[in-house]
Amino acid sequence: MKVGFIGLGAMGSAMASNLIAAGHHVTVWNRSEAATEKLASLGAKVARTPDRAAQGDVLHSMLANDQSVREVFLEGGLLEAMDPGIVHVNHATISVALARQLAEEHAKRGLGYVAAPVFGRPDVAAAGKLNILVAGHAAAIEKAKPLLEVMAGKLWPMGDAPERANVVKLAGNFMIVTAIESMAEASVLARAYDVSAADFIALMTSTLFASPVYQGYGKSIAEQRFTPPGFALPLGLKDVLLAQEAGLAAQVPMPLAGVLRDSLVEALADGGQSLDLSGLARVSERRANLQQRKK
Amino acid sequence: MKVGFIGLGAMGSAMASNLIAAGHHVTVWNRSEAATEKLASLGAKVARTPDRAAQGDVLHSMLANDQSVREVFLEGGLLEAMDPGIVHVNHATISVALARQLAEEHAKRGLGYVAAPVFGRPDVAAAGKLNILVAGHAAAIEKAKPLLEVMAGKLWPMGDAPERANVVKLAGNFMIVTAIESMAEASVLARAYDVSAADFIALMTSTLFASPVYQGYGKSIAEQRFTPPGFALPLGLKDVLLAQEAGLAAQVPMPLAGVLRDSLVEALADGGQSLDLSGLARVSERRANLQQRKK
Amino acid sequence: MKVGFIGLGAMGSAMASNLIAAGHHVTVWNRSEAATEKLASLGAKVARTPDRAAQGDVLHSMLANDQSVREVFLEGGLLEAMDPGIVHVNHATISVALARQLAEEHAKRGLGYVAAPVFGRPDVAAAGKLNILVAGHAAAIEKAKPLLEVMAGKLWPMGDAPERANVVKLAGNFMIVTAIESMAEASVLARAYDVSAADFIALMTSTLFASPVYQGYGKSIAEQRFTPPGFALPLGLKDVLLAQEAGLAAQVPMPLAGVLRDSLVEALADGGQSLDLSGLARVSERRANLQQRKK
Amino acid sequence: MKVGFIGLGAMGSAMASNLIAAGHHVTVWNRSEAATEKLASLGAKVARTPDRAAQGDVLHSMLANDQSVREVFLEGGLLEAMDPGIVHVNHATISVALARQLAEEHAKRGLGYVAAPVFGRPDVAAAGKLNILVAGHAAAIEKAKPLLEVMAGKLWPMGDAPERANVVKLAGNFMIVTAIESMAEASVLARAYDVSAADFIALMTSTLFASPVYQGYGKSIAEQRFTPPGFALPLGLKDVLLAQEAGLAAQVPMPLAGVLRDSLVEALADGGQSLDLSGLARVSERRANLQQRKK
Repeated sequence: MKVGFIGLGAMGSAMASNLIAAGHHVTVWNRSEAATEKLASLGAKVARTPDRAAQGDVLHSMLANDQSVREVFLEGGLLEAMDPGIVHVNHATISVALARQLAEEHAKRGLGYVAAPVFGRPDVAAAGKLNILVAGHAAAIEKAKPLLEVMAGKLWPMGDAPERANVVKLAGNFMIVTAIESMAEASVLARAYDVSAADFIALMTSTLFASPVYQGYGKSIAEQRFTPPGFALPLGLKDVLLAQEAGLAAQVPMPLAGVLRDSLVEALADGGQSLDLSGLARVSERRANLQQRKK
Repeated sequence: MKVGFIGLGAMGSAMASNLIAAGHHVTVWNRSEAATEKLASLGAKVARTPDRAAQGDVLHSMLANDQSVREVFLEGGLLEAMDPGIVHVNHATISVALARQLAEEHAKRGLGYVAAPVFGRPDVAAAGKLNILVAGHAAAIEKAKPLLEVMAGKLWPMGDAPERANVVKLAGNFMIVTAIESMAEASVLARAYDVSAADFIALMTSTLFASPVYQGYGKSIAEQRFTPPGFALPLGLKDVLLAQEAGLAAQVPMPLAGVLRDSLVEALADGGQSLDLSGLARVSERRANLQQRKK
Repeated sequence: MKVGFIGLGAMGSAMASNLIAAGHHVTVWNRSEAATEKLASLGAKVARTPDRAAQGDVLHSMLANDQSVREVFLEGGLLEAMDPGIVHVNHATISVALARQLAEEHAKRGLGYVAAPVFGRPDVAAAGKLNILVAGHAAAIEKAKPLLEVMAGKLWPMGDAPERANVVKLAGNFMIVTAIESMAEASVLARAYDVSAADFIALMTSTLFASPVYQGYGKSIAEQRFTPPGFALPLGLKDVLLAQEAGLAAQVPMPLAGVLRDSLVEALADGGQSLDLSGLARVSERRANLQQRKK
Repeated sequence: MKVGFIGLGAMGSAMASNLIAAGHHVTVWNRSEAATEKLASLGAKVARTPDRAAQGDVLHSMLANDQSVREVFLEGGLLEAMDPGIVHVNHATISVALARQLAEEHAKRGLGYVAAPVFGRPDVAAAGKLNILVAGHAAAIEKAKPLLEVMAGKLWPMGDAPERANVVKLAGNFMIVTAIESMAEASVLARAYDVSAADFIALMTSTLFASPVYQGYGKSIAEQRFTPPGFALPLGLKDVLLAQEAGLAAQVPMPLAGVLRDSLVEALADGGQSLDLSGLARVSERRANLQQRKK
């Protein structure tokens, strides 16, 4: 198929590469051109402007946040310049409010729209094993399906209202941050009784909590190594805020989210901007003054 | 070996059965005699009083809570009546404070003491696959090891201070309750956007959170079936309270624990005494008034 | 002086009336014209469009929230149409972010800007006894001072950065909501032990907490009478959200605010849209299931 | 009347002095004898053992906490040695559970028992202006009333179940700690926007929150002076824990209490053992890293 791909961060690059490898004709665009070189070397056409990537069967976008999506599609006018028959598959983790607005704006113009946020890190994307949530009109999904299957280990259909895929993504990320905060608090409790974080985390993540999230972030907590970020702490905060916003709009109290928000803000106040999400463990440690008392 | 076993609930029975099956000479005692019959039929001697079970190489106890342990060992005077050379292996989930007191009281009398709380439900106990945390003096542990290995999939040494095993057990249970509350809040958020709890939980527990705790409790939340209790809600509250107490004693703030406590108390206020821990999902649902709005 | 007044809700009407009574030439504008009649009868000129009210020495505005302020001043283009020498005195409780934006936009155009949020209900406004926080450039404040003094029991200077007055207003409202939640939780605890809310509140608000906020909202809690709203519950939520936003922007964790947010959202989920803020007491009561158990 | 008084800390001494000044025959006992000298100089008889103070019409006790009360009255055997016709008036802030136990133990022995916890600091006690909560059987209260009136600005009857007075005292102290935490968080928010704590607190405590609690603790927060303690931080934590315990026993969720507990524990972990309760402000400041960013 003739495919466009906008947004070539670590995730987007890996996803677009797989589309090329599967034999699709891919035109890419990225705000900074540097990121396009690798894709060009694999066979992608490089567009100078986003509208050039939006002339084909399907346009994928994997942008960083609400603001980038707004700038490119709404304020930047891309919606007006898209090929009328195209389906836009939006992989970004965005707010429920923007998801609804995008669904409307696409519908108004007769453009197809599929929300397709993903679970998985860049290595999973590179392996074509992402878990992809998919919501939108059946016909639009049908058209994009062969492309999504290239990228996914599994597709998870979430119905025809696009925001459902986004709310599930936010709910999932909320669960991830909770899991990390939970390990952070529990391991500081253990350490206060002279059990090492490494011993505690090894036990938990090889038994009751033997799952990717706990093992991945648990390793960082066990080793107290919070850089470089896999999932950057400010992005985790962004997602907790979006989950809270979704909860507010639907009148769903989420007391755990309130705790996560404060811990993440405290991490930032303590200079954690470039830490991994697992850096939440530093906040728990500081609250218990563990460093001081060990001296 | 000549072994005593006190406390024959679902867990204790399964553990004692395995000791018998492994060829040890087991004398059992339980407050209510009914529970001793099955063990007797397997070959156990039944003691009329707990001191009769405390004459041998090792005495295991698997009692319900601090109060039962206090009643039998401290107030009931069992400590005074134990065989001088015996090692007491205490499997109960008790407070750090009681763990310390028991360690002292045993030491004073020259009795061996090993804290050996377990992770695993009755079916895991029956299969001899428990994860057993083990802390105490090396010699005492050495003596009990052949018996522990009969019951365990794996032993997790936690050093020589018995309370360390207990604090790790409490920290682990705190993580379990957090995981459940996290699924409860997230799935109500999803439901408020018309994603079914079943779809949401299926996604989460077969991907990021594909671990026993999430899968087990997640199934109950997905099916909204909270009885009969696997892990009873009041026992979950008990363990959260003990984790908070351990945190307080060691000056470790645990904001998530505060949220769990309130949710569990709210569940009890709403009549949740005989629900499973996964019944926390009912509290999240009630807070969002989800039943009403669906009408 | 020649004065404009935009926004004639209960507060704005009372404030504008006092300016007229003090002999100033007041031109008023309000989105719905009905509200202008009373002021006209007192001697105000009624403007058909907001720009007509913005030709004079000082323009006061008392709009409901960020959105109204944006619509009138930014999107509606009023800033472009204001008399070049005028000082805009903004009494609304708005976000810190909007306060900063307005300060910049006024400065760009050479317009004076004073943030002057108020503490006090309509009856206090009518009596000219408001506590008014004042921040902005000294010259602008100086010009508006005679008018502010007509409305105020006391002026509280907060420096030259307008957003400071706004953040103090939000911090104050956060304290008000906390005080109410505190009475809500405490009085349900008392009631669970058969002490009436009325007895408990009477004691507290005539001794340790003998202050306007506790006495006013305490009376509603004691009488369990939550309508009509003095300070509407959704507005309280709006202000808690703005306080959280201000905290987020300045990296200030506010754990109490998280609790307030959840209680307010729960109140809304339970149908509390038209309750007074003191309706938070219903949430505490419901959590403890107090109605059911009293039956 | 013939009166005994046990427990001569700052509060007890002031209260006993007033009884002497009012012409009653007072026998005092205190664990450490030093404290009895001042009372002796005013005319009190000094008892060597507590039972000597318990022979008369009424015995007042003002001990520090549950443990002291248990040690003197239950474990120390004072209950057995009291004059059969005496009424015991217990002013201590104790747990609801102990209050119930004491009521039962006195009743069993035919001894009168009145719970009479007080609000007010030592200077208020010295002035005979305490607010005294009073609960117990009418006859017992009647007998003690003339003495209570000597000490009180006002008596607040709470019915015949003694624990009601205790739960109200705990609910009140919970409100005090909440008020302090509220000022702490709000003033750090203000400071992050360059409004001084002093300006912020002055505004709040002379307007909306012009009450003793806010003014007293607010002054400390404004001046950032947290020693010497008026109300020591660890005692505040004790009372929050007792309020939580009372909530737990009656199935009343109290989310604010959870926040207070964590803040107080964090204060202790940061070396706050000998600070005043207002030292909670240091925790808020540390969370926002305010000291660091000001450098």
